This record gives sequence, C-alpha cells and structure tokens, in this order.
Amino acid sequence: MSELRKDPIIWRWIIIAPERGRTQLLLNSQKMPPQTPEDCPFCPGHEYMTTPEIWAYRPSSSPANTPGWDIRIIPNKFPVLRIEGDLNREADGIYDKMNAIGANEVIIETPNHEQRMWQYDIPRFVNLLRAYKNRLEDLQKDPRFRYILLFKNEGQEAGAMQAHSHTQIVATPVTPQLVREILKGARDYFIFKERCIFCDIINYEKKDGRRVIFENADFFAFCPYASRFPFETWILPKRHDPDYQSIKEGELSSLAEILQSVLLRLTKALNDPQYNLVMYTGPVRRLRGGYWQTLDMDFHWHLEINPRLTKLSGFEWGTGYYINPTAPEEAAKYLREIELG
Amino acid sequence: MSELRKDPIIWRWIIIAPERGRTQLLLNSQKMPPQTPEDCPFCPGHEYMTTPEIWAYRPSSSPANTPGWDIRIIPNKFPVLRIEGDLNREADGIYDKMNAIGANEVIIETPNHEQRMWQYDIPRFVNLLRAYKNRLEDLQKDPRFRYILLFKNEGQEAGAMQAHSHTQIVATPVTPQLVREILKGARDYFIFKERCIFCDIINYEKKDGRRVIFENADFFAFCPYASRFPFETWILPKRHDPDYQSIKEGELSSLAEILQSVLLRLTKALNDPQYNLVMYTGPVRRLRGGYWQTLDMDFHWHLEINPRLTKLSGFEWGTGYYINPTAPEEAAKYLREIELG
Repeated sequence: MSELRKDPIIWRWIIIAPERGRTQLLLNSQKMPPQTPEDCPFCPGHEYMTTPEIWAYRPSSSPANTPGWDIRIIPNKFPVLRIEGDLNREADGIYDKMNAIGANEVIIETPNHEQRMWQYDIPRFVNLLRAYKNRLEDLQKDPRFRYILLFKNEGQEAGAMQAHSHTQIVATPVTPQLVREILKGARDYFIFKERCIFCDIINYEKKDGRRVIFENADFFAFCPYASRFPFETWILPKRHDPDYQSIKEGELSSLAEILQSVLLRLTKALNDPQYNLVMYTGPVRRLRGGYWQTLDMDFHWHLEINPRLTKLSGFEWGTGYYINPTAPEEAAKYLREIELG
Repeated sequence: MSELRKDPIIWRWIIIAPERGRTQLLLNSQKMPPQTPEDCPFCPGHEYMTTPEIWAYRPSSSPANTPGWDIRIIPNKFPVLRIEGDLNREADGIYDKMNAIGANEVIIETPNHEQRMWQYDIPRFVNLLRAYKNRLEDLQKDPRFRYILLFKNEGQEAGAMQAHSHTQIVATPVTPQLVREILKGARDYFIFKERCIFCDIINYEKKDGRRVIFENADFFAFCPYASRFPFETWILPKRHDPDYQSIKEGELSSLAEILQSVLLRLTKALNDPQYNLVMYTGPVRRLRGGYWQTLDMDFHWHLEINPRLTKLSGFEWGTGYYINPTAPEEAAKYLREIELG
C-alpha cells in the first residue's frame, strides 16, 4: 500500500509507492524491458490484462472489455493513488504520513501500438480531447477530490512505463504544492492588476512576436519567457476560462489543430523527442451555500509541453533553479519556421 | 551573456544560459560526444585548455598551470553565473530579468581520467574535503555572495558535461529558493521545539534503526524518511554546526571514511550508478555592527547523495510531488548489509 510521507524540514509530501520487483530492477541496473504488441496490455485483444474499462469510444454493438474500441479508459492497475479508503493522517514517530488516496485513470489513445500522438488525425484528436473533458466532468463529482491533473508521458525519458500511447489522469484529495503556487501567482496578479495574467501574456506575446510558435482562432502557442527547458511550449485558449471542462464543441477542433501543429513541429525539429504534456485546469469547485465558489475565476487553463532534452544537474536539484541552454526566442523562431506537410 | 528571468506567475528565477552550439546538438538529437583523455581539458598536460588555475594541490617545485598537480581548481570556462558585473535588475516588457552574476568554480578531483570518486583512497578524500573547505572560506569573503552551493554530477544522467571526475562550486548573490525553504523549515522547527531538527532526526533514526546505513564517531549516514528518490542517502555530522567551513581537521578523515563507505555501498548495490551529490551549508554570514549574525545557527550542514535511477513523469513535473518506488527502509537495509572489501 503506498503512502504519503511529509518531509519534516520543508513539508513537501512524497509518495512512497513500492512496486513489486521495481527495486530489484534498480539493483540490477536494468531498464523496463521494451514492450511489443504481443505483451502490451493496452493493445486490442489484451483487454483481459487490464482492469475493467470505465468508458470506451466503440461501436454500440461491441461489448465492453473486448476489441473494437478506438479510445479506451481504464483505472491504472498500478495507481499512484488508490481510490478506496480514507486519508487517515497519523504520526510515524517524529514524522507524519497519510494514505495515498485518489484516482488514477489511463486513457489509451489509440488501438495502434506504434502510433504516436503527432501522427493522429484531427478526428482522433477531437475524440481524445472530448474524452479528457468527459473524465474531468465525471471525476469532479467525487466530493473527496480537490484537484485533477491530466498528463502524458511520451517515452521512457519522460517517465512512461508503457510504450503504447496513453494519457493519465490523477485526482488528488489536496491541491498539489506546485499547482497551489501557480493558482496563487495568478490570483495575486489578478488582485494587483484586476486582469488575468495569462490574458496579459497572450496580448504581450502577440505584440512582441519573438516567442510565438503558431496561433489559430481560439488558441495561442508560444515558448514562455522564463522557459525552464529548451523548446518548452505552452498552448493557451484565447477565451479566458479557468476550466478545461468548459471547452466548447467548436473549440475542440481548434485545439486539435494547434496541438497537432505543435507536436508536428517539435517532432520535425527535435527528431521525435520524448516529452511530457501537462494540463493545468482550475481546481474542483463546489457549491457552497447555494453559490459556486468564484475564487478561482482568475485562473486560465492551459497546456504545457516539455521535451526531455537535457538532464538536471546537482545545481538544479540543489537550488530549485533551472538552467536552460536554449533561449525561448531561439526555440520559437525555429518551431515557427518549420514547414509542415 | 546569460541572464536570470523571473517566471511571471510563480516568481521562480530561471537561468537562460545560451551555450554555443548546444541548441544545434539538441536539434540533431545528438548527445555530447564521450570524452577520451586525449581531448579532455581536465587531464594533465591539457592545462592550457582551461582557464588559469585558482589553486592546486601540487609540489611547490611545480609551476601553476602545468602537470604535476593532484587536485586542481579552476573557474568554470562555461559558467552558470559570471563573476564580473552587477545584477542590474530591469524590466523586459511585462517581465523581469537580471544579469546572472556569481562565481562558478570547478574542482578537478584527480589527475586520472578514469578514476571515479568511489575509488579514491582516504588521503585523496581528505585533501579534496579540505579543498572544499578552503574554497568556501575564500568565496565567503566576497561581499556580493549570499550562498555557496557545492555539488557533484557523476555521469551524463546526472547532468555532467565532462567525464573527468570533478566537483563544482556556485556562489550566488541571492539565496536560492529551495535552500531558503530548507533554512526556513529548520528555523521554524527550532523556534517551535528549541532544538535542531537535524539533531532530532539523527537521534530518532539511531533509535529506530530501519533507515540507518552506516555511522562512525563523527558522522551518520541514512536514507531519509521522505526520500524523493530510490536510495537517496544523507550524511550528517553528529556535532551540530551550521557551516561546513567549521569542520575540524580530525573530522575530515571521519567524513572521508563515511563518504567512501557510502559510495562503495551504492556502487556495489546499484552497479556504479550515476548520481548527484549536493552539500547544504549555512548561508554566508556577515559581521553586522560588530556581531556575527547568529540567525542561522539553527541550521546543520549535510550532504545529500541521489542516484539517478528513475525518471520524473508528467505527474511529478506537474505537481511538484515525487513518487519513489523504493521505500527508504528497503534501500537502507540493502546498503547496510553490503559486505565491503
């Protein structure tokens, strides 16, 4: 059973999640073996290898947990956080711990083991983005959850444990520390300026132009001014909205288009890089005394894509600073000028 | 010229340090080429390839910047922070930046290109640890510096750019964010309990025993309760002292012994792992009105060693949480029971 342990000095929560056999792999300095379609639990025909599906995009004639699906959503068999039980905060000698409670779902994005996200056509992107929305809408009903994070690990360097293309969703009973800092930063700015910081960034970056990658009617992609990593890319909706769940049907195809464009550019520029994609959306809001809490209307949902090109050094681990050898102006120029198709 | 840019949302400083040709390597998805003694700037005979030495452990008959040295200290040719100039804080449109000012030195630990730290004999460790002390004592005299971080990157996975074994020192004009959190955590505990949190941890871990790796008269090595990474190892001095610089001559050989023991254990257990070593010492103190500032006497210097065995995932990048698949109790038991020699 995994548990959350609190760092006694800086009060950061660590998830200790012992995985059967993982330590033994580390001791023998082995990597996870590469997966083939034959032993991949995410491939069609292997539905019995996963936990039963939560939802699937499949013809109505095809029964659950059988082949025929196009997108499939399952609970993670080895979840970071477990859905059953209580937090059960308690002391552990001079330390503090609690159970690692939450939800951890896996969205299998395609039945094709080899297909990467940059290869999806627009209909697949739209269906996937709609599936994200549906899962967020469903998970936010659980009163235990405060925050829902959606992320994708592409490649072992990016922490992927399965080669088959997938997205993960984790719902947490507390708002994670970094998310809280981002929410607080946006709120402080809103109080100070009476404007959304993300809206201001879009306006400024459009005028400045040096860090722009691509835009369409509804979305804006750029390399942020204080990029932590080379080729760090953000995609922001132009319409101010704290919650991804509020995305409109017509915006889904705009988002599909810009996501495809950005991933194609990164793939061409960096030769099919490994990357992490993270979605930041507003925290789960609750009806309180008949009113929706509006405190978090100062947030603006967005996507961050970070290619894993460089390694952190002791300086970065030790200080919390990041050193980026590629200026975002240089990265954006390169990505902007890529010729597609 | 590298610059510090402030993240407009969470106020984190990022170092944008464009390195000649680095982006081109990333675009071609190339790795840094492996270095041989023939083209290694840290090997004896190649002193002309580095910036002139600051200090070297060498026979008095051998002139500076020639072979014959045993340990050699140079300014980093490609420094993270530059020694010349002013911080020069200024606006950059809606953003904020300043010059990346500081010191960045490299300690070449051995003349032997192939020798790794775990292979050093006790005299080499003692000389190296004394060199650390001397550099910290010297750098703290510069009134511009507020914090001095000492770290080692072993292997490309740990961010090393040179294969030849070396340590780096970075002196910064501001106390880095993570260091500030650690100092604040220790201070808050001290105010609350009127005891040092690190002294309390040593006492508790000795009694508990499950996370102990090794100890000698002056030092204590263990896997911390809220370990971020598998086999994370801390070495603490038993004598409470905020500053590494105050280490006594007799303690240097105790520290050499425990460092050698810990590195041998990690090497045996994990098959010569890549790792980061970071030293946290108290911030630079200044005489003010004739008194030393004593505010930071609640700190307790220590070393952290983190093998680079796992990759961070989008969940970790997105939340600031860490997921550790190996409980520290399991790691410590394994390291404790390793038979040396």
